[in-house]
Amino acid sequence: MRVVQTPDEIRASMVSRRGSGTVGLVPTMGALHAGHARLIERARADCTTVVVSIFVNPLQFDRADDLARYPRPLHADLALCEQLGVDVVFAPTPESVYPEPPDVTVHVGATAKYLCGAFRPGHFNGVATVVLKLFNVVQPQVAYFGEKDAQQLAVIRRMVADLNVPVTIAPVPTVREPDGLALSSRNQLLSAEERALAPALRQALIVARDVVAGGTRDTAAVKQLAAGTIPGNERLRLEYLEIVDPWTFQPLEHIDRPALAAGALWVGSTRLIDNVLCTPPA
Amino acid sequence: MRVVQTPDEIRASMVSRRGSGTVGLVPTMGALHAGHARLIERARADCTTVVVSIFVNPLQFDRADDLARYPRPLHADLALCEQLGVDVVFAPTPESVYPEPPDVTVHVGATAKYLCGAFRPGHFNGVATVVLKLFNVVQPQVAYFGEKDAQQLAVIRRMVADLNVPVTIAPVPTVREPDGLALSSRNQLLSAEERALAPALRQALIVARDVVAGGTRDTAAVKQLAAGTIPGNERLRLEYLEIVDPWTFQPLEHIDRPALAAGALWVGSTRLIDNVLCTPPA
Repeated sequence: MRVVQTPDEIRASMVSRRGSGTVGLVPTMGALHAGHARLIERARADCTTVVVSIFVNPLQFDRADDLARYPRPLHADLALCEQLGVDVVFAPTPESVYPEPPDVTVHVGATAKYLCGAFRPGHFNGVATVVLKLFNVVQPQVAYFGEKDAQQLAVIRRMVADLNVPVTIAPVPTVREPDGLALSSRNQLLSAEERALAPALRQALIVARDVVAGGTRDTAAVKQLAAGTIPGNERLRLEYLEIVDPWTFQPLEHIDRPALAAGALWVGSTRLIDNVLCTPPA
Repeated sequence: MRVVQTPDEIRASMVSRRGSGTVGLVPTMGALHAGHARLIERARADCTTVVVSIFVNPLQFDRADDLARYPRPLHADLALCEQLGVDVVFAPTPESVYPEPPDVTVHVGATAKYLCGAFRPGHFNGVATVVLKLFNVVQPQVAYFGEKDAQQLAVIRRMVADLNVPVTIAPVPTVREPDGLALSSRNQLLSAEERALAPALRQALIVARDVVAGGTRDTAAVKQLAAGTIPGNERLRLEYLEIVDPWTFQPLEHIDRPALAAGALWVGSTRLIDNVLCTPPA
């Protein structure tokens, strides 16, 4: 396994690999868990060359404290990549990715207007910009993204379509703990007590799914029932729970087709997100 | 020479050509003139495969009337491309380039703040977006841009740097009429009387260059002297004449290094631009 640290190096190291077979990229911010492992395994099964990028992208953080405390266990991450048969890890320094503040960036419109986009200003512009940069230096045929970050996946798909990016986007299902909590690098920031409270978001989204399956089509009613299941606890604060079109991420007033219920829950000082597909009865 | 009309077609037709030698792209809006011919000749000399794109990009027009009256002599353009040994012309329909209004676009910051960027809101975002789309479907190693559109060239170079776009940008000097007028597709919109007035912009910029070469370093003084040479004529209106850093396109107060004098002149209802490098004495 090669580990490279600058855009120039990864570009150079890809030249010889590009000719032979498929290159798959798994873009990550590190702190790898079983959800990332699922992405990497999928890439390993599909591709000749598997590249994992590990980069905590400052451009997508709207809060300095969040950027500062984001976990960065690089040695453990490299060990997991090695174990999973990754060919190249691209773990660049912020200075090599952003030698100066970028003046030309990727801008996301309506797809980033609601949900995380509304609560994290500039977040998806930062995500789209760094993902396009990674695509441009690695030049993969396929890139793998987890469905847990559903709005991110929608933004990347829209970017690929709107900018004719020559990369196939492969979505990979969310991996969960036995109690339903979606795996996230942020879970390790939870105290034991917070960890016990964290599945509340998943449980609320399951209620939304079941209520929709039961025939309720009015979004406001579904949201109220689902949000009402979040326990009253000073450590829990529901940031949003919305029901949107799974492709455009525009809110739906009536659930007359498959829709995504998505939420963000603060557990202490850690923000968790999750989502579930809601399908109305035929 | 092949002529292809959709992004899917050009992508498919490039697959076999990509393996063998260099691909050069000359992005144009058609109405080809000797300035474009210079770009194509340069590409022909450098590259194995030469692709010319012809697309009047609606996204970069801030005025509907300008878009409507922009010349589109496709047959003559194709004949010139054939004559110059072009391999592939990509002349897409607006519908195939923008199947729906793009939600994810390229955004240009400070590089687009002044000069044309100030007077044509959204123009450079539209230019950067379509150029990135063209790069993504053609995937050239080299792309050729004329120095007449100096701010556009600076925007594209900045985009390539900031987004790690794997394309080398080759600037090509402006081609001029014997009286100094820079070749432009818009020149054909001028009446005979307007055509006679049009070199005034070039002449003003030459004055700026000479005054700087003579030792004047105060931008305000240089601008005043240069702009003062534009004849008083109801058909002439100077939109701007600025002196900027040639890379960042930020205005310079003092000309203590090579600087670009750039101007936009309305001649009747046609807007012309030009620029000249100004080098202060050592």
